[in-house]
Amino acid sequence: MKNIITTSNSINLDGLIEEAESNPGKALAREFYSAEEVFSEDMQTIFKKQWVLVDHISRIPEKGQYFLFEIANESIIILRESEDKVNAFYNVCRHRGSKICLDNEGQSNFLLCPYHAWSYNLDGSLKAARTMPEDFDKSEHSLHSCHVKVFHGLIFINLSEGAAPDFDSEYAALSPFAEQQGIATAKIAVKKEYPNVANWKLVVENFIECYHCKPAHPEYCSVHPAEKLLAFGAGPGSGPEEAVEKYSKKLLAWEEAAQAMGHLTGVYDGGNDSLGLAQAARYPINDRGWLSETLDGKPACKKLMGNFKDYDGGQTALAFNPFSFALCCNDFAVILRWTPKDALNTNIELTWLVSEDAVEGVDYDPENLVKVWDITIKQDKQITENNQSGVMSGKYVPGPYSLQEARNISFKKWYLKQLKSSS
Amino acid sequence: MKNIITTSNSINLDGLIEEAESNPGKALAREFYSAEEVFSEDMQTIFKKQWVLVDHISRIPEKGQYFLFEIANESIIILRESEDKVNAFYNVCRHRGSKICLDNEGQSNFLLCPYHAWSYNLDGSLKAARTMPEDFDKSEHSLHSCHVKVFHGLIFINLSEGAAPDFDSEYAALSPFAEQQGIATAKIAVKKEYPNVANWKLVVENFIECYHCKPAHPEYCSVHPAEKLLAFGAGPGSGPEEAVEKYSKKLLAWEEAAQAMGHLTGVYDGGNDSLGLAQAARYPINDRGWLSETLDGKPACKKLMGNFKDYDGGQTALAFNPFSFALCCNDFAVILRWTPKDALNTNIELTWLVSEDAVEGVDYDPENLVKVWDITIKQDKQITENNQSGVMSGKYVPGPYSLQEARNISFKKWYLKQLKSSS
Amino acid sequence: MKNIITTSNSINLDGLIEEAESNPGKALAREFYSAEEVFSEDMQTIFKKQWVLVDHISRIPEKGQYFLFEIANESIIILRESEDKVNAFYNVCRHRGSKICLDNEGQSNFLLCPYHAWSYNLDGSLKAARTMPEDFDKSEHSLHSCHVKVFHGLIFINLSEGAAPDFDSEYAALSPFAEQQGIATAKIAVKKEYPNVANWKLVVENFIECYHCKPAHPEYCSVHPAEKLLAFGAGPGSGPEEAVEKYSKKLLAWEEAAQAMGHLTGVYDGGNDSLGLAQAARYPINDRGWLSETLDGKPACKKLMGNFKDYDGGQTALAFNPFSFALCCNDFAVILRWTPKDALNTNIELTWLVSEDAVEGVDYDPENLVKVWDITIKQDKQITENNQSGVMSGKYVPGPYSLQEARNISFKKWYLKQLKSSS
Repeated sequence: MKNIITTSNSINLDGLIEEAESNPGKALAREFYSAEEVFSEDMQTIFKKQWVLVDHISRIPEKGQYFLFEIANESIIILRESEDKVNAFYNVCRHRGSKICLDNEGQSNFLLCPYHAWSYNLDGSLKAARTMPEDFDKSEHSLHSCHVKVFHGLIFINLSEGAAPDFDSEYAALSPFAEQQGIATAKIAVKKEYPNVANWKLVVENFIECYHCKPAHPEYCSVHPAEKLLAFGAGPGSGPEEAVEKYSKKLLAWEEAAQAMGHLTGVYDGGNDSLGLAQAARYPINDRGWLSETLDGKPACKKLMGNFKDYDGGQTALAFNPFSFALCCNDFAVILRWTPKDALNTNIELTWLVSEDAVEGVDYDPENLVKVWDITIKQDKQITENNQSGVMSGKYVPGPYSLQEARNISFKKWYLKQLKSSS
Repeated sequence: MKNIITTSNSINLDGLIEEAESNPGKALAREFYSAEEVFSEDMQTIFKKQWVLVDHISRIPEKGQYFLFEIANESIIILRESEDKVNAFYNVCRHRGSKICLDNEGQSNFLLCPYHAWSYNLDGSLKAARTMPEDFDKSEHSLHSCHVKVFHGLIFINLSEGAAPDFDSEYAALSPFAEQQGIATAKIAVKKEYPNVANWKLVVENFIECYHCKPAHPEYCSVHPAEKLLAFGAGPGSGPEEAVEKYSKKLLAWEEAAQAMGHLTGVYDGGNDSLGLAQAARYPINDRGWLSETLDGKPACKKLMGNFKDYDGGQTALAFNPFSFALCCNDFAVILRWTPKDALNTNIELTWLVSEDAVEGVDYDPENLVKVWDITIKQDKQITENNQSGVMSGKYVPGPYSLQEARNISFKKWYLKQLKSSS
Repeated sequence: MKNIITTSNSINLDGLIEEAESNPGKALAREFYSAEEVFSEDMQTIFKKQWVLVDHISRIPEKGQYFLFEIANESIIILRESEDKVNAFYNVCRHRGSKICLDNEGQSNFLLCPYHAWSYNLDGSLKAARTMPEDFDKSEHSLHSCHVKVFHGLIFINLSEGAAPDFDSEYAALSPFAEQQGIATAKIAVKKEYPNVANWKLVVENFIECYHCKPAHPEYCSVHPAEKLLAFGAGPGSGPEEAVEKYSKKLLAWEEAAQAMGHLTGVYDGGNDSLGLAQAARYPINDRGWLSETLDGKPACKKLMGNFKDYDGGQTALAFNPFSFALCCNDFAVILRWTPKDALNTNIELTWLVSEDAVEGVDYDPENLVKVWDITIKQDKQITENNQSGVMSGKYVPGPYSLQEARNISFKKWYLKQLKSSS
């Protein structure tokens, strides 16, 4: 119990990494979950390199519409320049540094700094600045831009200083899944935030294992059968081999039925050498004939999404990276995003999508739409906060992962590899 | 005024100790009351070595009952295993570190971690963990225990890493006083917390001198006579010799009367080489015939405590260490505990005890029971917070102790000795 | 974007100063506006050397009246000892360091520490201390005093450790302006505080340029004409030369009219080598015949201030240093003070003065009196907070000052010079 209080003493990160690598089957040490120095490294070497899913394109359908994505000290303006183009700029005036956009979202033909009225065009170039010295060069004072990519209607940004990692090589395999789901033509139905007093890695580690589902998520377990949750509860590679085999007959039967309907099935796993552990997979919700991930198995929305002509009762799980996921039924999808705030805080945002022609109150009831994941993520918030509180103890010793936490072992390996790549 | 703002610059603790020792008759320097580095040392070298009084056994009369004691980043589960046994465990799951008990108190046949349902027996051993790898050894994953001791119904814990300091050699002399008071068979009547924005040493130093009683505690001074407060206001060795002598005749008269009733009287002082400055002493409340420490001198409870058959109008003061005290009249007792939170925050908890057969509303009125000490400790909270605020000034210079602050000189000497023992 | 999060890494202040000096026409780097280390230097080398305007003498007309001025960890008691004498003391008891005065203002024949009742005379000497050791010397335990000066009824304090910089050589030139305004015989009408989440230099830099007036202050711009704001919006030397020349004819016409009434006009600029960039200047409010700085140009108070016998429609701007300003019309004055709290917080206090014989509700309506500056300073609070938020970005790069921010260039030069003087 060397640390009866938290002191941000200097940390031997190399030593911590080495120790962590020598115990691949155990959780990380406390410093990884609590030290600001490690958090700073996490942001520099991991978060900044990832393509982070910031929102759905339906949030800014018209020219000049924008919204802000806030991460640590950075505020990014995501802006539609034209029908074909979405830009991302740092929300910092090139004059004396004021924030330019103050509202979370809005629409304008140009961006006007509220301090001294410097204005910027939708391409980020400086439009006007009053009474500047004669040698002032407008062309040198465009907004700082950041990498942006729209993939099936999902807007990703990348905060890399230089060239960003290649998007397509990481996500091409997810394209057919997103295509079938019609994410590009979806619309946002509901958006909810859940501030979480826990390190981002505790939030990730919670999401990539279903060992906790049985004790912590009774509602979720009333929807999904125990044998599936044991085998694939947190996606491909999350459960014990034995359970996968045991469940394989039921899975195969469902896959054949879905394929007969012309639907895509299958699993993609980018593996541990991928940029962000990308995965895609389709599974049946259950074998009780449920159509959607609702508390009674009935559809959440009367309009099917994308290419689906009829319900196959399946769910498509997409993992873009440890910060961005999507879970899609035939009639709705939910995007999950964790935004690290500091060593002890992570913001969780969930966005529910439905078909663009679905009408609220007619085709779907928002309260029913969100129910399963709203309940589940609130339970996750509680347990990750308890986890954070516990790992602060000087007596915390990383314990062994269970067979249902196989994906945590993958994540840990990937995480340590990324962290080492910086030095 | 070098420090117009508080910056947690690195601190030369050895130099500070040396300077403090060269001025034994003056208060400590600001850093001792404000620097997180010093606080961290205080916790490691002082708090962790003490037997800290956490509560009275009547809080957990039945098997499986528990309560939490929270200190800095640690949460300790104090748990009754059986009629004869009380255990103390760190509230940290051996799997991935979640807190196990979330409520401040409860009762259960085993401890169940809410995250992944690892369960523990009441002796701390791991009872069950699902789907673990084959080489998993349950016997290696018991809860971390901490030292615990029940003394006359008072539960003490000790956070030492290895062997704890011997309990009996420190507290044997207090046993007859606790025995007479019947603390073992008392029950908790009222419990109150007072968060205090002051360093723990300012809280201690306030409690061990009665120089401030006259200006700051009018109600307390209406109960206790000035001549006694001058001589013994904060226990043996707190006042000037002259005042002790002047008061000795009255004290002697009371002692003879009490002894005639078969009651124990006298003073015990563990002295400056003891583990935690333990003391015990009996004094009369006043010489106006008051029976109990109430605003009118009438009993606070109709049932006498312990071995008392009749009122002798005395009060037994027990000092276990600078964090834990008890003040006991014939009919009730109050336990006082200061729990350091960080350099600038200390939690104060007061617990009032009465005889186990006293009935609330019949034998005692809780509001009347707590009155004197509730008023007094609220006043102490105010003055220690003002003290903290003032010592933050760059102009603060430790001033000389008065003759009524003799015990502060002892405490300072003991404190510096403890602090030096670590290096 | 090296700093996606704020980490208080060690800072190379010399390097930052050198870089800032090589870009005289651009704003300061982020560290100057955010790092606690720089803030600490600012306080030591800049704030402590300035004569800070703490309040108007009319706040303590009677013997024994006092008020507190709180700055960072320091609390200063400003106290009237006698009809002729005002003292300033650190609010720290010489015994164990308690704050002595707890209320923001009060009156007493002596100062009584609430902890142990040490008492002090109004000259700061120790009046009484009970039960002290025989060798205790009262004369060695007077309150710590700080430099204080009353100038035309304005109370200034100076926190220099040794001798304070000479007051008169800095402020003699402002005396005729203050004399004409009758500040010495004014009284406080209204006082308002505006906590500002911004570094003090962003607050200063906002106040010394009027480049932002047009976009940010519509009400202020409805009072003051654009051509004047362009030339002198933030005092002498704040606007482009061209604008000054263009406005000179109107200014001259007003000056002749004011002089014909026997009123003082003109400009004083202490220049960049002065202690605190002191300035004084008189300008007409506008050329539409407005008498006072109100939203309709009508007087704010029926009683003229000082030596004015009739309205000349002018305004006297006094800059004492970057922390203290006064803006005075014929019938009222407003004192503006910025008190740095920490790197990211500054407290703004505005005090409105009127003639001592003006009667609230009869001669002036407090709500109308404060309107223009209350609105304007609330807008400034908003824009400086946006500015602070933006400069925290890793992408913030100091941009070029406009021709309307000439005084910012002077301030930056002065600031860097002061900062260098410490090493």
